Amino acid sequence: MLGNSDKTSLEQIGEFGLIALIKDSVKLYNKQTVMGIGDDAAVMNPAEKQVVITTDMLVEGVHFDMSYVPLKHLGYKAVAANLSDVYAMNATPIQITCSIAVSSRYTVEAIEALYEGINHACKAYNVDLVGGDTTSSLSGMVIGITAIGLANATDLVYRQGAKKGDLICVTGNLGAAYAGLQILKREKSIYIENPGVQPDLDGYDYVLERQLKPEPRADIITQLRELELKPTSMMDVSDGLASELHHICKASACGCRIDAEKIPIDTHTWQVAEELNIQAMTMALYGGEDYELLLTVKQDDYEKARMIADLHVIGYITEEKDGQMIIDSQNHLHPIAPAGWDAFQS
Amino acid sequence: MLGNSDKTSLEQIGEFGLIALIKDSVKLYNKQTVMGIGDDAAVMNPAEKQVVITTDMLVEGVHFDMSYVPLKHLGYKAVAANLSDVYAMNATPIQITCSIAVSSRYTVEAIEALYEGINHACKAYNVDLVGGDTTSSLSGMVIGITAIGLANATDLVYRQGAKKGDLICVTGNLGAAYAGLQILKREKSIYIENPGVQPDLDGYDYVLERQLKPEPRADIITQLRELELKPTSMMDVSDGLASELHHICKASACGCRIDAEKIPIDTHTWQVAEELNIQAMTMALYGGEDYELLLTVKQDDYEKARMIADLHVIGYITEEKDGQMIIDSQNHLHPIAPAGWDAFQS
Repeated sequence: MLGNSDKTSLEQIGEFGLIALIKDSVKLYNKQTVMGIGDDAAVMNPAEKQVVITTDMLVEGVHFDMSYVPLKHLGYKAVAANLSDVYAMNATPIQITCSIAVSSRYTVEAIEALYEGINHACKAYNVDLVGGDTTSSLSGMVIGITAIGLANATDLVYRQGAKKGDLICVTGNLGAAYAGLQILKREKSIYIENPGVQPDLDGYDYVLERQLKPEPRADIITQLRELELKPTSMMDVSDGLASELHHICKASACGCRIDAEKIPIDTHTWQVAEELNIQAMTMALYGGEDYELLLTVKQDDYEKARMIADLHVIGYITEEKDGQMIIDSQNHLHPIAPAGWDAFQS
Repeated sequence: MLGNSDKTSLEQIGEFGLIALIKDSVKLYNKQTVMGIGDDAAVMNPAEKQVVITTDMLVEGVHFDMSYVPLKHLGYKAVAANLSDVYAMNATPIQITCSIAVSSRYTVEAIEALYEGINHACKAYNVDLVGGDTTSSLSGMVIGITAIGLANATDLVYRQGAKKGDLICVTGNLGAAYAGLQILKREKSIYIENPGVQPDLDGYDYVLERQLKPEPRADIITQLRELELKPTSMMDVSDGLASELHHICKASACGCRIDAEKIPIDTHTWQVAEELNIQAMTMALYGGEDYELLLTVKQDDYEKARMIADLHVIGYITEEKDGQMIIDSQNHLHPIAPAGWDAFQS
């Protein structure tokens, strides 16, 4: 990845060479894409739908660590995280733009690996890479992704529609991505102390995959549509459940009551929690990057919601004055501290 | 700008505090904006138009130098550069997203100044800031802007439509932004050698403004529309005229012949060129960041094109085999080297 002599430096091919290389690697999947890479701007035909726009910036050393994140996975994850936000609007992603700033220690081959992951995610989720920017940085890598999706106006689901009595549901399981990150960090620190020791990642496949190659829940959005079940509010779980519950409650001016025992946590996550002496519940509530969906549905829709195998009811919406509460296995009620990922806190 | 004791650190207010602060500073101007900051994604109602998307990434130390670029200007310019790409499609910008990564040496007040410039540009060009991302970086600042515009499908102008015989036009004048940059660099090096000397920027207002606070040519797009004049191809001049001519010729599979004496250069640019012993023509051809428009029109549209005061015919489109040529004041014909801004070359 770093400047080996058999690799190609970015200076050798220049910015336009790199753009041409990226352009050649891109396939388009959507008839809505009128113009992709190659003009001042990309063009999309929304065909009477509403346009949904979301963006993220990932910084080396802050959001990812090159010592344990393969570039291909990084590209895939960067796209997946943005698509997750589009799905969380109950919309279908159609296009992405991807900008990168890279220092000269990155080779052309490294950027190719990154775009291999980006293109792989585009193919998996039927999304067109239509533009971006490639530039140099003085240190490390920064990736900026913008995703653009479409939805019928009546299908859009915001954070603000939750009402008292609605059931709170979450997809899949929580805390696994955080568990994977802790394993990677542990192996890194062992390696730093003793570079002769090979990392031992055996048996951690599930949590590592959740950390390194998360999949946004397109499947859930499809099932919601097939069941004609429109959530009253929805968002993706990227900063941890506690933080997302706080956002839904704030936007919807309501409270919530969560049953701790109902929060889905995978057995592999439990194992890591035990091994590392971290509470699994803490991982589920405050560990980020699960890219599951948090949504609320009317009680009348319970029978429909039950049809979705990987959707779990974890509580219900209360009045705002009742606060955001969680009930533990001893039947004790606690307020949920809203802490989640904060980019400016260490 | 840097961490003075009477300033507020980003850690003090945290990421959500910063987002709230940015959100509070934002006004919306467009009825097409259904949802701005505050959900998983922004929403736009395109109302039967085509959607145009463009994105840029600006890196401290590569694209801007904090020692002579005020943050307010930087914010304004970052937006202006993106809107310029939307106008270059003959589209109207409606929304932007803005992501920033900043190191801890930036204070809340510094970020406020940046967003003051961003909001100022949004107001000037009637554009809604609808989302973004705020995160930390290990060194310096990175700004990522995505602009989204709308146009009737029949109004869109690409780079690829130029035909033999079309007139090549450019707006305003070229090389001024580059001249401004050279003055800023000169004063910086004087200051580094002798910190006691105050920078002497008197008399350079015009070129400095072109460098620090460029204005995209929304006015030209309006005039084209009023005159019902649709260019056959168009792009903005961000990397220098030579580079942009190369793009148009490549996309349109044509050649060009430019009359050097017709290239508009402001007297202030000439003065700086003389003072710094740089050829003004080199500045116009290879200096970037002018954010003027380069466009081609059919010969039949010449009378209409003449009605636009600030539009200058500088040559005409030839066949591809004739190459990209420039004729100098001694009537000598030269090929135009396509060099322009390349992020990976020093």
